[in-house]
Parts: sequence; C-alpha cells; structure tokens
Amino acid sequence: MTPITYPYPQLSEFANNIFLRIGCPPDQARKATDVLLSADLRGIDSHGLARLSGYVRLWEAKRVNSKPDIRIVHESPSTAVVDGDQGLGLVIAPFAMEVAIAKAKTCGTGWVAVRNSNHFGIAGRHAMMALEHDMIGMAMTNASPLVAPTFSVERLLGTNPICVAIPAGQQPPFVADFATTTAANGKLEILQRKNMDAPEGWVQKEDGSPSTDANEVKNGGALIPLGSDREHGSHKGFCLGAWVDIFSAVLSGANYGPWVPPFVSFLAPPADPVGEGIGHFFGAMRVDAFRTTDEFKKHMDNWITRFRAAKTVEGQPHIIIPGDPEREFEAQRTKEGIPLDPKVAEDLKQLGLKLGVGF
Amino acid sequence: MTPITYPYPQLSEFANNIFLRIGCPPDQARKATDVLLSADLRGIDSHGLARLSGYVRLWEAKRVNSKPDIRIVHESPSTAVVDGDQGLGLVIAPFAMEVAIAKAKTCGTGWVAVRNSNHFGIAGRHAMMALEHDMIGMAMTNASPLVAPTFSVERLLGTNPICVAIPAGQQPPFVADFATTTAANGKLEILQRKNMDAPEGWVQKEDGSPSTDANEVKNGGALIPLGSDREHGSHKGFCLGAWVDIFSAVLSGANYGPWVPPFVSFLAPPADPVGEGIGHFFGAMRVDAFRTTDEFKKHMDNWITRFRAAKTVEGQPHIIIPGDPEREFEAQRTKEGIPLDPKVAEDLKQLGLKLGVGF
Repeated sequence: MTPITYPYPQLSEFANNIFLRIGCPPDQARKATDVLLSADLRGIDSHGLARLSGYVRLWEAKRVNSKPDIRIVHESPSTAVVDGDQGLGLVIAPFAMEVAIAKAKTCGTGWVAVRNSNHFGIAGRHAMMALEHDMIGMAMTNASPLVAPTFSVERLLGTNPICVAIPAGQQPPFVADFATTTAANGKLEILQRKNMDAPEGWVQKEDGSPSTDANEVKNGGALIPLGSDREHGSHKGFCLGAWVDIFSAVLSGANYGPWVPPFVSFLAPPADPVGEGIGHFFGAMRVDAFRTTDEFKKHMDNWITRFRAAKTVEGQPHIIIPGDPEREFEAQRTKEGIPLDPKVAEDLKQLGLKLGVGF
Repeated sequence: MTPITYPYPQLSEFANNIFLRIGCPPDQARKATDVLLSADLRGIDSHGLARLSGYVRLWEAKRVNSKPDIRIVHESPSTAVVDGDQGLGLVIAPFAMEVAIAKAKTCGTGWVAVRNSNHFGIAGRHAMMALEHDMIGMAMTNASPLVAPTFSVERLLGTNPICVAIPAGQQPPFVADFATTTAANGKLEILQRKNMDAPEGWVQKEDGSPSTDANEVKNGGALIPLGSDREHGSHKGFCLGAWVDIFSAVLSGANYGPWVPPFVSFLAPPADPVGEGIGHFFGAMRVDAFRTTDEFKKHMDNWITRFRAAKTVEGQPHIIIPGDPEREFEAQRTKEGIPLDPKVAEDLKQLGLKLGVGF
C-alpha cells in the first residue's frame, strides 16, 4: 500500500497530545514528541510514530512512568549515573546527554550511564545534541534480547546501537548511527510487511542453522551480530553488542543481556531482574579539550571532502559519508511532510480514538 | 614448515638487545620489548617479533626516532594530547595510557589522543593497563590505508583496531580486541604463506569486484570493512574504521585516511602530510566513578557466567567470551615458550647478525 504523507506540524501536535493524555508534564511531552519524530524526519521509520502506541501500551501496563523523577544518583567530575525512574527513554536520554555536556564544559569530557529507563528512540538524536556545543557526542543503548552471539542459539543481546556524532566546519557533521547486528530489526519488519525473504546472514533458526525467513525471530530464531558468521567476523559484532550492553547496564545498574525487559507489553519482563529497566550510555567530548576547534574543523572538512571524492565502483556515484542519507531525509521531510505506512496511520487513528485525540 | 618453539626469556633478551642497539634508552627498550612480545604471548603472531626487523628498517630510514621526547602538548582535566616525537608506538602508547589512567584517578575518566607516533603493537596490551586500577581501558589506532570504504575502489583506511578491556571479579576480564575489517591483515598473511584462497568478503580487486585471492591487496586490491558487503552491513564496518581514524588522528593532529604513512620502509610516506605520524586514542574510566567496584564486579561476573553458559549450536562446546582465547595462549606460551614460523626465526637471526646480537 502507498504511504500517505502528513505535514510535520500535524503529526507533532498529535504525538504531543497523546503524551499529555497519558500524563506527561508539558515540557516532557514536548521533548518526547521532538525525539520520537526525529526518527520519522531522519528516515528511520521503525523508531518513530510507528512505536507510539507501543509506548502507550507500556504505560497502560504500568511499565512506563509518565511523571518520572529523573535524577543523578552517583557522580565524579567527568561522570554520572542517572536513574530514569522508569520514565520514557525519549525524555531520560536528553536529560542524561545534557549532564554529559555540562560535565564536558568543565572537565573536557562527560560520560553518563543510565538505568531504569525505557526505549530512547534513535541514538543519533541524542549524540547530535553535542554538535552545537562543538563537542563530539556518543550514545548507545541496550535493548530486548533478539540477537544470538556467535555459536549461540540463545538470544542474549539486543540490536544495541551506537552513535558517534562529530562536528565539522563547512561540511555537515559526521554522524554514524548503527545497530551492532548485520541488519537492524526495522529492516526485517519491512521485509515482513512485503512478504519477502531476508538475505543470508541476517537471521538464524531456533537451532542456530542459517535461514532467510524474515519471520524467523518470531519463531524462536535470532538476529545475527554484524559480520554474519564466524568466518566473516560475527564475533566482532558480538564484541560490539556486548560492549554496548556492559557500558549501558553493568556500569549503570540496569538489566543486561537476557534480563533486558521486552519492549512489547504482551511479553512480561523477566521474573528475576538483575537491575532496573533498560540502560543507556552517553558521552560528550569538547573538541578544544584536544586541539583548537578551528584546526579540528578544518581537518574534519578535509577528511570528509577527501572521502566524498573517493573513486567508486562502477554504478555508484559516490561513497556514503555517515549521516548523509539521514540529513537528506530530514531536509526533504521537514519541507514535504512525513510519509506513514497506512498500517501505522490506522494504528495512530485508533490510538487517537481511544485517548480522545484527533488524528 | 613446523614452527620452532623458543623460551620467552631468550626472545625477550634478544628483542631488548636489538632495541638497545638502535639507541633506545634502557627503560624504553625494556618497555618496547614487553609490549612487542605481549603479542606473541597472546597468540597474535603477526604483531610480535615478526615485526621487529620492520621497526629496525624504519629506524634506518630515519622514520623512527629511538630517543623520543614524548610529551603532553595540550590538556584539560580529563583529556590530553601527546606528541610522540616520532618514537616507537610500543613506547609512546604506554606513556599515553598512563596519562589517561592518571586523569581518571582525579577526574573519573581520562582520554588521550596521540600524534607523531608509529605502530603500537596490539591494542589489547595498552587497554589492559587499566584493569589493575579497577578501570575500563580503551585503545584504538589508525594504520596505513589498506581498506576500501563501501562502494570505494580506493584504499582510504587502515584496519584500525579497537580494544575495550573491562575488569571482572572472580571471572577473568572481558577483553575485546579486533580490527574493524572483516579479517585482520595478519589472517591474510597466514593464507599467503600457505598458498590458500581467502573466503569471499575479505578482499576486493583493484576495480572493487569480489575476489578470493589472498594476495589481492598486493595487486592494488583492498581489504573490506567488517560486514563484507553493503547488504551485510559493510557500511557499519566503515563507520567503525572512520571513527577510529578521526579519534586517533583528527583529534590529535596525526595523519588520517589515505595520508597515514605506510608501515613498510620501502614505501615512502605521502609527500603532502596532513599531520604528524600516525595517531592513537586511549581511554580509562574508573569503575567507581559509576557505581561501587564490588557491585560492578559482581555483575560483570554474572554477565560473563551467563554468556559462558549459553546454549550453543551443535558441535560448539561454548561461545567465546572476548579475551578467552588470548588469555589461554598467554598461559600456555608463558610456560611452554613461543613458537616462531621458521621464516620469522631466520629473519630475526639475520637481524641479529647485522646488529651484532646473538639469537
């Protein structure tokens, strides 16, 4: 079915009203809306409005607290741990990133681990907060276990994304934002909707054998770490996912590995939690804590320009500088509106009817 | 040919004497020896004694300074930039990591970018320095361009490894140390010696098309970022390699991308450098800057124990916890000695004859 395009202000007002209806204070509703819709704007449709009714169901199940007391519970000059009080990750993450930025202002760098949170939208939105301060930003989060480490048939890790956002001068910033699996779960959801197979190396069956069934994860199978198999480095993808899990949750006191609570409300959280909620990790590094901002930006421009000019394989006009595709989406969708899958639009309409918010 | 095994003390004395002979001060010769041989001990044979004569050739070409004045040239409470004065990376890297650890002691975390350095051995050796201080350690470095970003036919990045070392309690530490390519160059060198083909997805031909020739990089081809191809996430491997390059060199003032000087003395460095030498980046984070060390270690033990107990695919007794294989090598080789490829042993013998050091 053809997507229908909606103006950004209309979708933004709708989401804001939904967040208000579930009890978010106005400033938090606004923040949650901006963060959620940044995914739709940047072309990461799986992480935007498509998840709004899921957040509401978690609130109905009392697994999201719409009036959280988000606070710092431990700190050093360059670090902090934030307890999100079971709030929306969409609100907790910007709070934590602000703490990291404030630490970096006085100390050169700031590093914040978060516990007792929920899904935080796209990592890129948070890491990019550092850019306007001439800082490098980093964001990572753990997530419900869907990924089997190399040689495992058990799902022990989430798709655990990492974002690194680096400011430049004349060039747009370098923004690498990626799941540490071969493919993000959102890519599989697209194939599922189209009844298409997945490429080999994206998923495995319940017994660990290869599969191309895009629905395999629903049947007890698993996503595969970046690398696809041992011979092609999937143990490195496992290292990356494990690193994100440990920084996000073992440092903060959140749940890790197979104990991370599921995002969907119809699956109960594990009965034996090892921490509180899900975990995130954020960093901010002041560029001028290393060299002058002017020098740094001049060389970032040179780096980006040189890579953009790389000689390419036939049929490819240029290599992709991390952040380019999302920025192009954002420019286009800010102007022309956000296309929603009809199923997502219908889901939002039903959500609006239930909560008395016009769509 | 069968490797010959040598006792560690014999090889250590030999390397130390070589470093003394090229003019290293005694403390630096000892440090360089320990760092170099840690690669042989940990089973990463490509980065140990096999490289010693290469270091000497770079010294002969006046591209390695055996008496460097290694110093901090810029700093903030949690950061520093170190200028390695063109010394051996084997000596500069531990200096920089000590600075990171000292910063972390007062500030919670410490982050050090290094310029004007050379090859630093294995990343793991440096990151692991943090462990005895109950800190998490990180190390990364850029390297000579052998890797083509996704869609590029040009080699613009090195194999740019990352190491993250995380302390545990009763369990051994988590140590993930990996090149950001599908396979490290050392793995190709092994196939070359055995006249074997490489798996698909490790290298590409000069025109960017797929290849299984283990010698392809010598013929103008390139290594491929982790992920193997676009469909399997090679753009994420490119993101990782680019991140390492920018942190190591754009932050520090070293050469980056295609300007990184080659490790081999028979290839001249680029005539238009954009910085000084090669670059590294190090980090140290005090665990108790986030939560009590006891709590952290208890949960790391639980994390490792749970993953080690994962149900596995048939034929695999257990999944591999990052750091396990290298630790097992180290235990065995410390006791039984280090096996050297006969070609490497002959190369060392010739090196000894040239410099008047008995092998």
